[in-house]
Amino acid sequence: MTGPSRFSINQMTVKQLSLPELTKACLRLGVPGVGLWREPVRAYGVAAAAALVRDAGLAVTSLCRGGFFTAIDPAERARALDDNRAAIDEAAALGTDTLVLVSGGLPPGSSDLAGARERIADALSVLAPYAGERGVRLAIEPLHPMYAADRCVVSTLTQALALAGRFPSSQVGVVVDTYHIWWDDTAPDAVARAGAEGRIHAFQLADWTTPLPAGVLNGRGQIGDGSIDMRAWRSRVDAAGYSGPIEVELFNEELWARDGEEVLAETARRFTAHVL
Amino acid sequence: MTGPSRFSINQMTVKQLSLPELTKACLRLGVPGVGLWREPVRAYGVAAAAALVRDAGLAVTSLCRGGFFTAIDPAERARALDDNRAAIDEAAALGTDTLVLVSGGLPPGSSDLAGARERIADALSVLAPYAGERGVRLAIEPLHPMYAADRCVVSTLTQALALAGRFPSSQVGVVVDTYHIWWDDTAPDAVARAGAEGRIHAFQLADWTTPLPAGVLNGRGQIGDGSIDMRAWRSRVDAAGYSGPIEVELFNEELWARDGEEVLAETARRFTAHVL
Repeated sequence: MTGPSRFSINQMTVKQLSLPELTKACLRLGVPGVGLWREPVRAYGVAAAAALVRDAGLAVTSLCRGGFFTAIDPAERARALDDNRAAIDEAAALGTDTLVLVSGGLPPGSSDLAGARERIADALSVLAPYAGERGVRLAIEPLHPMYAADRCVVSTLTQALALAGRFPSSQVGVVVDTYHIWWDDTAPDAVARAGAEGRIHAFQLADWTTPLPAGVLNGRGQIGDGSIDMRAWRSRVDAAGYSGPIEVELFNEELWARDGEEVLAETARRFTAHVL
Repeated sequence: MTGPSRFSINQMTVKQLSLPELTKACLRLGVPGVGLWREPVRAYGVAAAAALVRDAGLAVTSLCRGGFFTAIDPAERARALDDNRAAIDEAAALGTDTLVLVSGGLPPGSSDLAGARERIADALSVLAPYAGERGVRLAIEPLHPMYAADRCVVSTLTQALALAGRFPSSQVGVVVDTYHIWWDDTAPDAVARAGAEGRIHAFQLADWTTPLPAGVLNGRGQIGDGSIDMRAWRSRVDAAGYSGPIEVELFNEELWARDGEEVLAETARRFTAHVL
């Protein structure tokens, strides 16, 4: 893929749009791909959502998200595995080969990061073959270290690759997301390694803007508004051999308060100006 | 040093106390050391502050803070060097051998982290000999990656050691602060290296609590309230050969709203319960 054909809009960026509105807006604006989220897809109906985007000729570039593997309680762990099997089935039904995983934070009262990471590996050993049989690749997303306690104990691309490396690359890889790794001077080498191993299963963009909002979840900046050299990261990921879609995934209260199609058009323009 | 004699209260933890109030509270509670900040010290008068803590028999375990070396504008860089020479002089006058450095974020409009880190090295090459002549060690503090854009482009202990390693350990070392490095699985090895090189110039504690407040500056948790295994970090730093003071440095609106001496007493109790 080259140029604007690589652009994909993650559904969360314009969550004010319903799935039919999003599909129509993509068609009007010539956006070729969407990254979907499980909750709105399930609310609409998985089969109906799959038909909607397929009929519109849109590529589903990823499904967000599985994961949350760090519980200690056996019943809770079994529920997480069941939920992830369902997520894999949903990804297959939607026609995407990539399920993004947010691995989970520390269980209440625990400070054992290494133990939590090992429980992620345990869950992957169950789910990776299940995914592989259905043509779905699990993509471990390292999240920014500010989420290590409550959301994801996998904080660097190197850690994500260490986990993924226990499994075939056709089953488990990583997500490269600029928002989470831009600060890390070891990440460029990790991108190169991930590419060489065939493990870059998704590439997502968001810019880093400050001040961060309370809870630090919904402050991801529009492309070009922040501190990240987007073109440098795109070049690194290209040089690593990745030529797939590039999703823009923004969680941003200000963008959500605006007209969704206008935000989508702006995001496509920013992609052309700052990424290509 | 052993046991409670290693406890030092960083002035910022109880900033509601004036310097004389802080000194008296330390005496009443048997707290042997304080980490001071430049602004309140200068407001009180450097010589007067030095006399106050000296007469009380308190050790000044560090002075916070110099740094902010990342500007590109020559005039701004010259002002930063002047200000840091003044900070070194103040540290010497207060009788502490350690000046903590917060290195600075990205200049407005820049996304060049590597360039900013190189400008830090340039500033250190000027300041390190000046500090060495006055018996003051510069201590580079890696700040959590969530501050990389606007406060400190040095985000890991490994990066801080790479910078410090260009200079004699008697002139430049690092700060180990649990709040900033707890998430990093490469930090334990970096602590060992820092100790072997004689570069652990300060050891500070704060706990990690969520949700983070807006701006993410003033949410550092009281020891024992968060996700960090304090005793494990103390053991690692001990094993690296560090036997100096351990400062508790909390920026926390809720603690600041309470009676300062009560917070100091609570912090000393938490230190005994969770760190020793």
